[in-house]
Amino acid sequence: MNGGEQTIVFERKPHIIAGYGIVGPKEGEGPLAQYFDEVAKDDLFDQKSYEKAECKMHLLAIERAIERAGLHESDVCALLSGDLLNQIISSSFSARELDIPFLGLYNACSTFGEALILGSIMLTSGSMQKVACSTSSHFSTAERQYRYPLELGTQMTPTAQWTVTGSGCSVLSMDGEGPVVTSATVGKVVDYDITDANNMGAAMAPAAAFTIATHLRELRRKADYYDYIVTGDLGIFGSEMLHQLLLSEGIDIAENHLDCGKLIFDETQKVHMGGSGAGCSSSVFNTYFLQQFKEDKIKRMLFVPTGALLSKVSSLQGESIPGIAHAVAIEVA
Amino acid sequence: MNGGEQTIVFERKPHIIAGYGIVGPKEGEGPLAQYFDEVAKDDLFDQKSYEKAECKMHLLAIERAIERAGLHESDVCALLSGDLLNQIISSSFSARELDIPFLGLYNACSTFGEALILGSIMLTSGSMQKVACSTSSHFSTAERQYRYPLELGTQMTPTAQWTVTGSGCSVLSMDGEGPVVTSATVGKVVDYDITDANNMGAAMAPAAAFTIATHLRELRRKADYYDYIVTGDLGIFGSEMLHQLLLSEGIDIAENHLDCGKLIFDETQKVHMGGSGAGCSSSVFNTYFLQQFKEDKIKRMLFVPTGALLSKVSSLQGESIPGIAHAVAIEVA
Repeated sequence: MNGGEQTIVFERKPHIIAGYGIVGPKEGEGPLAQYFDEVAKDDLFDQKSYEKAECKMHLLAIERAIERAGLHESDVCALLSGDLLNQIISSSFSARELDIPFLGLYNACSTFGEALILGSIMLTSGSMQKVACSTSSHFSTAERQYRYPLELGTQMTPTAQWTVTGSGCSVLSMDGEGPVVTSATVGKVVDYDITDANNMGAAMAPAAAFTIATHLRELRRKADYYDYIVTGDLGIFGSEMLHQLLLSEGIDIAENHLDCGKLIFDETQKVHMGGSGAGCSSSVFNTYFLQQFKEDKIKRMLFVPTGALLSKVSSLQGESIPGIAHAVAIEVA
Repeated sequence: MNGGEQTIVFERKPHIIAGYGIVGPKEGEGPLAQYFDEVAKDDLFDQKSYEKAECKMHLLAIERAIERAGLHESDVCALLSGDLLNQIISSSFSARELDIPFLGLYNACSTFGEALILGSIMLTSGSMQKVACSTSSHFSTAERQYRYPLELGTQMTPTAQWTVTGSGCSVLSMDGEGPVVTSATVGKVVDYDITDANNMGAAMAPAAAFTIATHLRELRRKADYYDYIVTGDLGIFGSEMLHQLLLSEGIDIAENHLDCGKLIFDETQKVHMGGSGAGCSSSVFNTYFLQQFKEDKIKRMLFVPTGALLSKVSSLQGESIPGIAHAVAIEVA
């Protein structure tokens, strides 16, 4: 990619050789229940705090993904991880338990896309042979960190989304089987001056639209090149906004757009606009979508995890909510 | 690098073609005053909050480094940035003002090392031509986020360090002039069960020792291969601990070890163990050390930014403080 461009085309293509996804009980009652590798019986994972629970879940996802890839910790050259907790403690404390070099990432709920892109670049540079990419989120840790104490029982506003309790990890390798990463578009920060922290879909949709349009333009592709364009966690409102924004640029994705935040819950689950969180796209991708590849039901997907780059402090200081989205093209090998 | 190893040797070597460092008034009264590119008159940078001030400083460092490299924003393929604020808002909100693809990083005060490593890998992979790597920290934002409200005027404990108000940015390119990144050792998380959040030097020293020892062993080098081994922000106590830990492995760095946290302040400045913060190593490296290279006073340095992976929540929940350190070998071209 040259300056001014955002898309990298990989000549040598890294394989996603294994994935593992683990979720909480509510996600395990949703439409993707049968696909998850593991559904926790309760969301404390036998720990004394929700933060420690998220960390245990995250660590499990990494360990099991590496195991499924037939590897040992010592085979993995780097762990690229992030989460939503302040100072990404779910990732850092998971990494503490692992004998793997650690690179912590933060791009909010788009972090899993960031990890796949950086992991792919590291492999194609020839400097590393295998890397693990993971993210997590937990409803109770996110709720009490970003919004209100859980004990308050605060009602969700109509445009709010439900933070997914889940974690997913992919193991990437130049050798092996599994779908390949063929190209990637690194997102820029986009801000449409949305200030409602209970409407993340609206904050992230412009970034998703911008990244998808850029990806298609730079690779001279039509949207229907992909079986599916899969966003991270725009939810119902954000997805509709994405369709409208892209339509205004002459791109129609209504027929082949899916959103992990919409897929993971159904209407009866009282999650308003759908799921969100850094663990939403990673838990859904590493289970449901990898399975679709395995069963030959998908040959090409554009995976676009989306993130809202706010903090409690930035909102309290009157800042709007910038969004970011990274696109990763994944195709059958 | 193979699985089990941590060190990448770059066959094609990225140049650090420009750097820029900007600091607050207290840092501008320290021993490195003459080297900083810019010293703010007051630490609010004409903004309404310290967080907005940190962001303005961070953005300035990035913009001026790109300018000094003779480039425009559109020439830079990616911005790799991080800081200490929750959800790295100083980096994200800086990126919002820039027309550059953004990859947010978090490895606490070792983030600048992480950024240089990932930036170098991205360039050597051939997928990008120029990247910018930056970090920041601010005394007042860190103090009130991690410790106590500033208004309390809480006394520092004897082992505490003073968070540097500063930001530094490097621009990397395969072409051009300036010292080159020749190899890098990606750190693992190391935890010696330190629980005192006012003794970060002790929490980070074991990680620094581990990374430095690994680097020298994997490259079969003696410590005196480098003119200087420069840690990020271990401070006085942490530096002493590092020397002892390495001596126990037969490595003596007493003669050629420097620490940015010790260099940036002098004894009269009441900073106890010295400076710390993600902006400490980046502001010192991009000014003082790049100048030493320019003046041929340094030919080889091992730059080892160090980080403490705690959060307020992890400490309150009784967790110890894991450390991490990444090593970047920088040599004359």
